[in-house]
Amino acid sequence: MNSSFKKNYTQILKRVDSAIKSYKFGDESVGKAAAYSMGAGGKRLRPVILTQMAKYRNPELKNNTLNPIPAAIALECIHTFSLIHDDLPAIDNATLRRGKKACHKAYGEATALLAGDLLLNEAYQILAKNYPADIARRLVAELSATTRRVIEGENADIEAERKAIKNVDLDFIYANKTAAMFGAPVRMGMIIAGWPDKSIRPLANAAQKMGIAFQLVDDLLDITSNKKKLGKDVNQDVRKKTFLKKNGKTWCEQEAQRLSQSALRTYKKYLGENSFMVGLTQWLLQRDY
Amino acid sequence: MNSSFKKNYTQILKRVDSAIKSYKFGDESVGKAAAYSMGAGGKRLRPVILTQMAKYRNPELKNNTLNPIPAAIALECIHTFSLIHDDLPAIDNATLRRGKKACHKAYGEATALLAGDLLLNEAYQILAKNYPADIARRLVAELSATTRRVIEGENADIEAERKAIKNVDLDFIYANKTAAMFGAPVRMGMIIAGWPDKSIRPLANAAQKMGIAFQLVDDLLDITSNKKKLGKDVNQDVRKKTFLKKNGKTWCEQEAQRLSQSALRTYKKYLGENSFMVGLTQWLLQRDY
Repeated sequence: MNSSFKKNYTQILKRVDSAIKSYKFGDESVGKAAAYSMGAGGKRLRPVILTQMAKYRNPELKNNTLNPIPAAIALECIHTFSLIHDDLPAIDNATLRRGKKACHKAYGEATALLAGDLLLNEAYQILAKNYPADIARRLVAELSATTRRVIEGENADIEAERKAIKNVDLDFIYANKTAAMFGAPVRMGMIIAGWPDKSIRPLANAAQKMGIAFQLVDDLLDITSNKKKLGKDVNQDVRKKTFLKKNGKTWCEQEAQRLSQSALRTYKKYLGENSFMVGLTQWLLQRDY
Repeated sequence: MNSSFKKNYTQILKRVDSAIKSYKFGDESVGKAAAYSMGAGGKRLRPVILTQMAKYRNPELKNNTLNPIPAAIALECIHTFSLIHDDLPAIDNATLRRGKKACHKAYGEATALLAGDLLLNEAYQILAKNYPADIARRLVAELSATTRRVIEGENADIEAERKAIKNVDLDFIYANKTAAMFGAPVRMGMIIAGWPDKSIRPLANAAQKMGIAFQLVDDLLDITSNKKKLGKDVNQDVRKKTFLKKNGKTWCEQEAQRLSQSALRTYKKYLGENSFMVGLTQWLLQRDY
């Protein structure tokens, strides 16, 4: 890990985290539950990526000064909604998340369910209220397409628990449940930065690969790390179907390496050797939490 | 009830219902569960209102030929999501909805939870994909503001179960849980028809009143009607706090009457004596299902 990257990341994280924590979800208990889960911290990877990609301005566009922070908050709303609902007894029945009680453990099942709904919905309110119409529409289309993939991936993951591993389409699960939410911040950041779809595609594809590598590393950490470091229950994957179970530790390490190298080549080509995304990809591969 | 209104309603319903049923949510089980609940029918009040209000074109706007059907489907997605989540064991634990098994009874709790999420999310995809940017942004802002109110109203309704009725803000619950979804189709229809916000306000306020009257009648039907007619469990309101319990049958009938008359005055003024909304308000007051 590059220590100057980590220092830079920490500074960016501080700003993004503080913006996320200051967003108001109202005084009702459902709003408090939403704010509780949004405030619980974490690496804020997805919103951080979005803000950094939004700095990669399209030079053909003059006077592009849109603020990426509202879109970053909207994206974190979607991520947090998916965590709250996945943690519910009907799905994973998890007790710990980001080092704090899971939302339904703190606020009860009904309010946690509705807090997830509130966050999913609020994401679109934020986009509609904070961007010019043409950008808002593209952001809403992008985020809702991604969220649909996340939901379908989560559903496939649940169904996989009842299947033999050879009958499970792990590529579908990894691509949609996890990696879609790495492609989305690249796309949304680049929409804010004024790029057309065709320029976005190669970088979003690279982020999708980085996202799969991220999940492979996560699977390895689930068996090697501990609750305190991860801030969530470990050995949660007992019932889950993973590439680790199917193909083993060495395959996972090599595949994470291969996908990261492919993403790095793309990032270096478009964003430069010392770009944020290059440092991030290297860090995510080597992390221990 | 005016029989020519009912005939007209049946024809409109047929078109709206068929459009809703033909919308594709994908081949995953979560998409099938979403389509199952969307296809279950019902009066389709909210999308029908939207399509009729969209016919009330702003005469200052020429060549306004936007199709209200996608927005009507989006609105029904939100309504159906709220029904699926409310029926879950964590909330109402209902078994029957629109004359069929509740979604979680047919598809299991995890898939029903995710099907609700899918529908809530898909509403915004539909709006972003089917309208010009400025209209799409207004529709997304409107629908997400309404959905937030519905979620907050539902949450207040759940919390009220644990409170003494004198400490419950029933006005808040009725205004948000139910009536907001009557204001929304008027607002969305009129946005599609090219009206500015200030022209929308009086008609949306009338629809909000009509929505409260609708709920008061619903509460009365919960104790007087039967499962077959309603297509959902009756006596579901045992734990719920309602105006019927607080103020009695006569008060509810008079209040539904008073609010309907107020809505009717507004509809007659802007839309005409024989307009759809006039017929609808009268029908909703006299219905027995």
